[in-house]
Amino acid sequence: MIRLTPRSTKFFEMFSDMANNLTEGARLLKAILEDMKDVPSRVEQLKTIEHRGDEMTHDILTRLNQTFITPFDREDIHKLASSLDDVLDFVHGAGERLVMYKITDLIPSAPQLADCIVRQSEQLRQAVAHLEKKNNVLQYCVEINRLENEADRIARSALGQLFETETNPIALIKKKEMYEVLETATDKAEDAANVIESVVVKSA
Amino acid sequence: MIRLTPRSTKFFEMFSDMANNLTEGARLLKAILEDMKDVPSRVEQLKTIEHRGDEMTHDILTRLNQTFITPFDREDIHKLASSLDDVLDFVHGAGERLVMYKITDLIPSAPQLADCIVRQSEQLRQAVAHLEKKNNVLQYCVEINRLENEADRIARSALGQLFETETNPIALIKKKEMYEVLETATDKAEDAANVIESVVVKSA
Amino acid sequence: MIRLTPRSTKFFEMFSDMANNLTEGARLLKAILEDMKDVPSRVEQLKTIEHRGDEMTHDILTRLNQTFITPFDREDIHKLASSLDDVLDFVHGAGERLVMYKITDLIPSAPQLADCIVRQSEQLRQAVAHLEKKNNVLQYCVEINRLENEADRIARSALGQLFETETNPIALIKKKEMYEVLETATDKAEDAANVIESVVVKSA
Repeated sequence: MIRLTPRSTKFFEMFSDMANNLTEGARLLKAILEDMKDVPSRVEQLKTIEHRGDEMTHDILTRLNQTFITPFDREDIHKLASSLDDVLDFVHGAGERLVMYKITDLIPSAPQLADCIVRQSEQLRQAVAHLEKKNNVLQYCVEINRLENEADRIARSALGQLFETETNPIALIKKKEMYEVLETATDKAEDAANVIESVVVKSA
Repeated sequence: MIRLTPRSTKFFEMFSDMANNLTEGARLLKAILEDMKDVPSRVEQLKTIEHRGDEMTHDILTRLNQTFITPFDREDIHKLASSLDDVLDFVHGAGERLVMYKITDLIPSAPQLADCIVRQSEQLRQAVAHLEKKNNVLQYCVEINRLENEADRIARSALGQLFETETNPIALIKKKEMYEVLETATDKAEDAANVIESVVVKSA
Repeated sequence: MIRLTPRSTKFFEMFSDMANNLTEGARLLKAILEDMKDVPSRVEQLKTIEHRGDEMTHDILTRLNQTFITPFDREDIHKLASSLDDVLDFVHGAGERLVMYKITDLIPSAPQLADCIVRQSEQLRQAVAHLEKKNNVLQYCVEINRLENEADRIARSALGQLFETETNPIALIKKKEMYEVLETATDKAEDAANVIESVVVKSA
């Protein structure tokens, strides 16, 4: 019998699953930040998504360690899985802090930052989906980097605003950390895009 | 004359020394956090242990650069040495902050977090000791990951508690950082366990 | 026609350009911190230098992905470019925070920390300039590590001082972060030195 699906395409499927799961998590975080109702129960859902992501990452790394011929550099498979995992960790970390710090009011600019993460995740989905055939992948990477710059500007301006208006130091500490965690998620998405870019460039 | 000990076993010995030294440091930190007496002089001892760890790490990396055939992947030797070094850096960093911030009172949950690090270090010792023969190593890695999850729960709950009860923002900043540094030490121990796991899986 | 410059020496030139650019950035940061006039416009200049550094890093990584034979280990080229880029990111990050937090007064010990970064950058320039012929490179790495220890001591003592004297928690948060960002820049310079050291040791 002929194996129609060679083993190596499995990695592309697994990365697509990871990127889909990440997108689901990012959308949920954005929805929570836009409408701060039932935060604890919705963050529980986010935790379920994050756990699923952990398992997907673990499966990719296990398969990598057991596979002799890989569709692209081993080190890049490792880095891509880790950075996609990192984005979702910070997405979840943002939700977790809402619960831990009992934040109940809308945080200015936080939904916009989450929106950058959602759009990066969608671009990562596209990039990963086109990675096997390597057509037009770089455009998604460019857009992910642009979104990281956008998030950086939003976070910087939100932090400047926060330090000008928030006089309660403990409230300031909480919100400052929210901005930093959200901004770090966009950095990790950029890391993932950089790995994808280098995979494409190497094969050119 | 026959060399009974091939050069390559030296790496396993060196990792065992690192794990023993780490365990010593973690135990000292736990003892300090449980009984906050003579903190500065005991943190000096911790510094001595950390310096010894730095030298051990440097020796492994130097030997790695000079060795052609290694007992497992070069990159993994590098990562394992670095992550063991990182755990001890954060253990020492926790002690250092006690002195720098002149903390003299018991910090709730800090001894429990240090206890997680002690138990992870002991598991790392076992894992490293069994790494050459590769028997039963994975169970230690599983336990180290479990302990990281436990530390995560303890830290999250301690932080939630802190934000509810501590009204002095500067005291809050100090304790929050203590929790974060201790929790990060357990993350680095998990990184070390992940390297060990991948070494074992690759050789299966 | 004979190609007098083999392709591979281009990497050394590119690293020299990066180290020169970093030194320029570090000197500007030090000048700003020593004399807090026109901070926003001078931080704009720092941003230009940082952007140039980003492009240089991107060019090295692109060339790396397109080059089959490299003058030293691919992974080390990648790590060296990334860590030099990181130093400049934190140098710029320190400047950015002055603007974001509207800091207008001299920050005690901040110029001394910036001076450590300047001296590390100058040593990195020397190390990179001598890397091709590998003569006397290790002395620069030793000095960079010594400067990191010096910066560590300065930052620790400045933080201790800050927590003793600053009673305004929001002002404390701002200055604490400045010290941490400056100290992290010196850590990244040490990372770069460690890569250079391992390149030299491997080739010995």
